Amino acid sequence: MKFVIDCLGGDNSPRANVLGALKAMAKYPDLSVVFTGVQEDIERELAAAGQTDRSRIETVHAPQVITGEDKPTDAIRLKKNSSMVVGLHMLREDPEIAALISTGSTGALVAGATLRIGRLPGIRRPAFCPILPAMTGGIVGVCDSGANVDIIPEQLQQFAIMGSRYLECAFGVKAPRVAMLNIGVETEKGDLLRKEAYPLLQNTPGINFVGNMESRDLLSGNYDLIVCDGFAGNVLIKTAEGMALELMRKLKRDIYSKGIYKLGALLMKRMFQQERDFFNYQNYGGSVLLGAEKTVVKGHGSSGPDAVCKCVEQACKMSLGGMNEQIIQSMQALNGEAAQ
Amino acid sequence: MKFVIDCLGGDNSPRANVLGALKAMAKYPDLSVVFTGVQEDIERELAAAGQTDRSRIETVHAPQVITGEDKPTDAIRLKKNSSMVVGLHMLREDPEIAALISTGSTGALVAGATLRIGRLPGIRRPAFCPILPAMTGGIVGVCDSGANVDIIPEQLQQFAIMGSRYLECAFGVKAPRVAMLNIGVETEKGDLLRKEAYPLLQNTPGINFVGNMESRDLLSGNYDLIVCDGFAGNVLIKTAEGMALELMRKLKRDIYSKGIYKLGALLMKRMFQQERDFFNYQNYGGSVLLGAEKTVVKGHGSSGPDAVCKCVEQACKMSLGGMNEQIIQSMQALNGEAAQ
Repeated sequence: MKFVIDCLGGDNSPRANVLGALKAMAKYPDLSVVFTGVQEDIERELAAAGQTDRSRIETVHAPQVITGEDKPTDAIRLKKNSSMVVGLHMLREDPEIAALISTGSTGALVAGATLRIGRLPGIRRPAFCPILPAMTGGIVGVCDSGANVDIIPEQLQQFAIMGSRYLECAFGVKAPRVAMLNIGVETEKGDLLRKEAYPLLQNTPGINFVGNMESRDLLSGNYDLIVCDGFAGNVLIKTAEGMALELMRKLKRDIYSKGIYKLGALLMKRMFQQERDFFNYQNYGGSVLLGAEKTVVKGHGSSGPDAVCKCVEQACKMSLGGMNEQIIQSMQALNGEAAQ
Repeated sequence: MKFVIDCLGGDNSPRANVLGALKAMAKYPDLSVVFTGVQEDIERELAAAGQTDRSRIETVHAPQVITGEDKPTDAIRLKKNSSMVVGLHMLREDPEIAALISTGSTGALVAGATLRIGRLPGIRRPAFCPILPAMTGGIVGVCDSGANVDIIPEQLQQFAIMGSRYLECAFGVKAPRVAMLNIGVETEKGDLLRKEAYPLLQNTPGINFVGNMESRDLLSGNYDLIVCDGFAGNVLIKTAEGMALELMRKLKRDIYSKGIYKLGALLMKRMFQQERDFFNYQNYGGSVLLGAEKTVVKGHGSSGPDAVCKCVEQACKMSLGGMNEQIIQSMQALNGEAAQ
């Protein structure tokens, strides 16, 4: 098992990327990695970590950084010597390399992987699936969260299949409960896309479709996977993220407005830390691009070593669990059924 | 100025509806009202409130209730003697009646008003516009939030015009900053709908279009009006509402998990009450159906007298400010421009 680790573009790059990968390598003795980025910075981090055994580590000098300011498609086309583009190139060309893990620009990574990495047979376009915490302690995946706008009903079906296999492989969720994001729970709700997709989802083999759901129940724990077009999914994810952030910020501001609140908050310090951790999405793993021939995991830009380690472990589980082969089988079952 | 007050269907009906209307009548001496609902219950509330002057009050017996369980279009068609359907009928037929205020089923009210009340000239379909609190202390409107799915770009333009006139009239917002909900702020972002709507919005006279916005900035205070299709708007609103609720619930649960947290929370009791009030949408007024020939205001189902009073006042301001005439003028300006 060999992965590329993109060591630029994150808030804590290259340190978090290097340390996170080393941590995952300690857990997975069969894992070897290629670090792309500024070679001397990577070497410095390896030395600082006391990493002398280099049998499972390569480094490739690719010093250009793709930032959030770069236009994704331009960055992929023009920044040929960036750690991400070089990583994507290696992922595509080297049959030994199974995955790329990055904490860099989401847009560029999705665009790059969609353009450069092939699709699994039958998959129309790869979809992006982040993971959120459910209030009941579990997790919930949202697929697609922004890679595909203007989709057709069959794509929602593919999102359901890919997301189900993903949650099984990477998180051990059994028979993931799949719901379609809609503006009401009744069968006939929604726009044309949703109305056409509903019977398709009902008749998709190998998924556990439980019906429509409303966005207010996102974190309810009643669903393991939400399927939606990338526009609505993006709105869903970013509203949830934004609200959690704004609320925590508002609480903080209000606490600092009065001495007695500050005192109260002091007693609740540990609790507030736990709340912050709960809503810190990086604690739940990276977002995965599903449907590409090889695994691409996007860690949060602010990922520390532990978060990067989680992303690498996710890729290990997908790789060892044979997720892509399972997606291919599910797609064959679907097409076989459709052909009958 | 004469309004119909639907006195059934809310959690606190008819009491909140009757008392709220009386409160608004005290502020607006030119306002008279017609209460629809269970006549003897309404009379009891009027008597309990010591309301002896009946010169500005009528009551109409329409005892059927439309509940959240009713299918909206069926309810409008079949529950002919419901307080809402009778109210809508009076609104349509009586030239003296300018507005209907209800705390009943949103779906039924939107469906009923869309089916029964005419549209303003040039308006394709009425749109629903709720109001949320901005973190900076102001408000933000979202149009459309669920009445229109599968829309065309020109409808986003109409939402921008109607919402702008609404925020000016009902809330005194000057040159409301209109943003289009999108999956990124760059001009070229989004699906086909958004890409086509962007230049339209840029060239719409009488609105202050400031560009795209992402859902995470919903409450930032940087925008006064968010325009979107009803599907995305519904996801936006319900995610925001759901997250605020879930977060407050989680805080509460966690506080009760330890004695020291309970003690801390006791010191912060007032603050937590203020947070709850801040996120209680009913404190910011009702949701309005824009583009209908007559004003329809939907108060939150849990509205108390103050919230109902706010809804009635909103309708007064729209009526006195000549909102619909202004929308007509803006539409004429738009069409004049388009014709040139």
